[in-house]
Amino acid sequence: MSSANNLTIGLFGFGVVGEGIYQILQQTPSLQASIRKICVKHPEKPRNAPASLFTTDAALLLNDPEINVIVELIDNADDAYSIVTTALKSGKAVVSANKKLIAHHLPELLQLQEQHNVPFLYEASVCGSIPVIRNLEEYYDNDLLRGICGIVNGSTNYILTKILAEGLPYSKALQQAQDQGFAESDPTLDVEGFDAVNKLTILLAHGYGIVANPDELLTRGITQIHAFDAGYAAEKGFQIKLTAQAKKLSNGDVAAFVLPQLVTDESQLFAVRNEYNGVVIESSFSDKQFLYGKGAGRFPTASAVLSDISALRYQYRYEYRKLKSEQRPNLTDDFYLRVFVSYAADGDVERNDFEFIEEAYLNDKRQFFIGVIRFSKLKEAQWLRKPQVSLLVCPNGIIESIELRQLKKRSLELAGVNSLAGAYLLN
Amino acid sequence: MSSANNLTIGLFGFGVVGEGIYQILQQTPSLQASIRKICVKHPEKPRNAPASLFTTDAALLLNDPEINVIVELIDNADDAYSIVTTALKSGKAVVSANKKLIAHHLPELLQLQEQHNVPFLYEASVCGSIPVIRNLEEYYDNDLLRGICGIVNGSTNYILTKILAEGLPYSKALQQAQDQGFAESDPTLDVEGFDAVNKLTILLAHGYGIVANPDELLTRGITQIHAFDAGYAAEKGFQIKLTAQAKKLSNGDVAAFVLPQLVTDESQLFAVRNEYNGVVIESSFSDKQFLYGKGAGRFPTASAVLSDISALRYQYRYEYRKLKSEQRPNLTDDFYLRVFVSYAADGDVERNDFEFIEEAYLNDKRQFFIGVIRFSKLKEAQWLRKPQVSLLVCPNGIIESIELRQLKKRSLELAGVNSLAGAYLLN
Repeated sequence: MSSANNLTIGLFGFGVVGEGIYQILQQTPSLQASIRKICVKHPEKPRNAPASLFTTDAALLLNDPEINVIVELIDNADDAYSIVTTALKSGKAVVSANKKLIAHHLPELLQLQEQHNVPFLYEASVCGSIPVIRNLEEYYDNDLLRGICGIVNGSTNYILTKILAEGLPYSKALQQAQDQGFAESDPTLDVEGFDAVNKLTILLAHGYGIVANPDELLTRGITQIHAFDAGYAAEKGFQIKLTAQAKKLSNGDVAAFVLPQLVTDESQLFAVRNEYNGVVIESSFSDKQFLYGKGAGRFPTASAVLSDISALRYQYRYEYRKLKSEQRPNLTDDFYLRVFVSYAADGDVERNDFEFIEEAYLNDKRQFFIGVIRFSKLKEAQWLRKPQVSLLVCPNGIIESIELRQLKKRSLELAGVNSLAGAYLLN
Repeated sequence: MSSANNLTIGLFGFGVVGEGIYQILQQTPSLQASIRKICVKHPEKPRNAPASLFTTDAALLLNDPEINVIVELIDNADDAYSIVTTALKSGKAVVSANKKLIAHHLPELLQLQEQHNVPFLYEASVCGSIPVIRNLEEYYDNDLLRGICGIVNGSTNYILTKILAEGLPYSKALQQAQDQGFAESDPTLDVEGFDAVNKLTILLAHGYGIVANPDELLTRGITQIHAFDAGYAAEKGFQIKLTAQAKKLSNGDVAAFVLPQLVTDESQLFAVRNEYNGVVIESSFSDKQFLYGKGAGRFPTASAVLSDISALRYQYRYEYRKLKSEQRPNLTDDFYLRVFVSYAADGDVERNDFEFIEEAYLNDKRQFFIGVIRFSKLKEAQWLRKPQVSLLVCPNGIIESIELRQLKKRSLELAGVNSLAGAYLLN
């Protein structure tokens, strides 16, 4: 990218966010950025911008030497891949909000930035308007970052809020979210947790310098969450939140996953409702910090894209310091989780997979237990994929290996108290 | 400062935060920063660090060519001024948490950074561990920043939390805060709002590029807050928070002040309790964002200082882009506030200063009214300084001139409904 302060933008996509960007740039000339051309798929659609701006020919933007910034805001990750990589190779700066593209091609995208010495910014890809990538990149030293735990997907948070507040079953809550425009007509990416794990992948890179493949991170969404679970949470005063989390263990390794989580009112995430996002960042010495804001929607996303565009004027780029550091932590599956598991019938869950079980309850329709399981075992468990099985991580549910023995001992001591729980105790 | 990656630190002050920094650096060698010498006032005090590190001779640090970073963590702003300016003049990078020094000498400190081409970082000076300066500096474009509203002082927030939650009078709540270590034995700087206004000055510089003199910003603390006010707030479901705020008006000018504020549960500040800090940042397109964390204390403050030290390794410096911009907004007093005013007796408040009064109430001990006043008039009002007069800004209390006429009209129409309020209506 040239060092000129004026940015000439080639925009891909004129959906909700693309149009938002166009409107904002029209309203704020001081940003010194203008859109030269907009590439769209369906030229026949009526648009709120001069027809002369539009084209269906990507090459017209990618080969235009006047265009020094490509802003990529299309849905399709494969097309986005080709646009972004071509742009970087032609030395154009790129701004994108495409978490799927970034999460799945991070190593290559890193290499292209390096090779062609161009910036690639994507603050909008995680938590919309909340500047979480920048803060992880700039402010929280890897050594000091103890954990990240975030609600990073607005659609699922909207649905969960409805389930908990109004006791709706999942299907009705989804329908409401779709009616309100807070969930896509094909909600799979959101409700299965895929969107969240893509974002977690990006957070791992900027927070810990870890390049992970999203497919390798344990991920479960919210489709299996049952009214029975919501009832349990309500009784205990908990919320259920789909969280993307990463935690540095005492040996320096990092635990990471996307799972629904029981949250107490001591957590800042407790009060993150509806389509909002929130991230708790814990560092060794500053205790917990909390960033909160709108994670999606036309203007929140556009505003994050805009901050990236604005940053390009000052030659800002991610330095990926933690990725380049020699002391990068490793991802590990060597830890335990305390989880609440609910299911329909006895054979649904392999209880032998658990180290021990602390509580159990059943009625004529459904049952649950709370137990501790080795994470590596959970990751392989076939029963976890069954639609009738719901698993929620308990508050402070990450247990390190060194803590396990004592917990197990205590649990055995308590076994006599409750015969039902006792019956489930193993070993 | 040399471009060497290794930082050799001269530390001034070994109080709560200074010792925290020392401990953290001992525990995290990867930061590649070591303390070479520590200058203290009272060498006779026992310290948790080798005696050989300590000196009382400032020149030993300031003249040491090996020391490339001065970390200034002393109480006295005058001494700090001489240390910081001398260090900058000798080309040493400086990290400080001294908001009073920074707020009162900003123009000179800006000039010295420029002149000697050295970085001066002070993230810890506002909201301790919360990276608010960095985010304003980097992420929120001046044009898009609509407002900042923060609880920036932990001591006063602790006291207000006690007053509201336990119905304690101010003096008892202060005593508790002092007993718990959340307020100084001389609390004046905090409880009179001086600490908050120093921080507001720094936020104005990084958020809006405005260099203000803290003495010129309307500031009131919490000493006058009465149990009667707390009763009113409780009845309405409000909290009372001491807020430092800046808001961009529709004409582009900026309103700014430090005043106690009634806060509804729709604001993220509502739930900021005890010694915590929180800042709501509103931008044109991203809606409200919220940053939350510990604003004071050994490790939170030390961790912010440390983030600055760490940033020096990468040649980070504030660019003060907004200060250098040609389109800097102006501070203005040309707006109105809707306020709740409580007082002991009729003559305590000059009611003629108000444009109109919307509600009024009195009992045999105390009275209040809610009215709208021109900010420039409020700033000059002698009655505002009386200890028996308490003023709280109402929720969404900033009113622009263009909104006033309509409000006034509505208020006159309503005047007949309530004879007491009617009696107060002027013009």
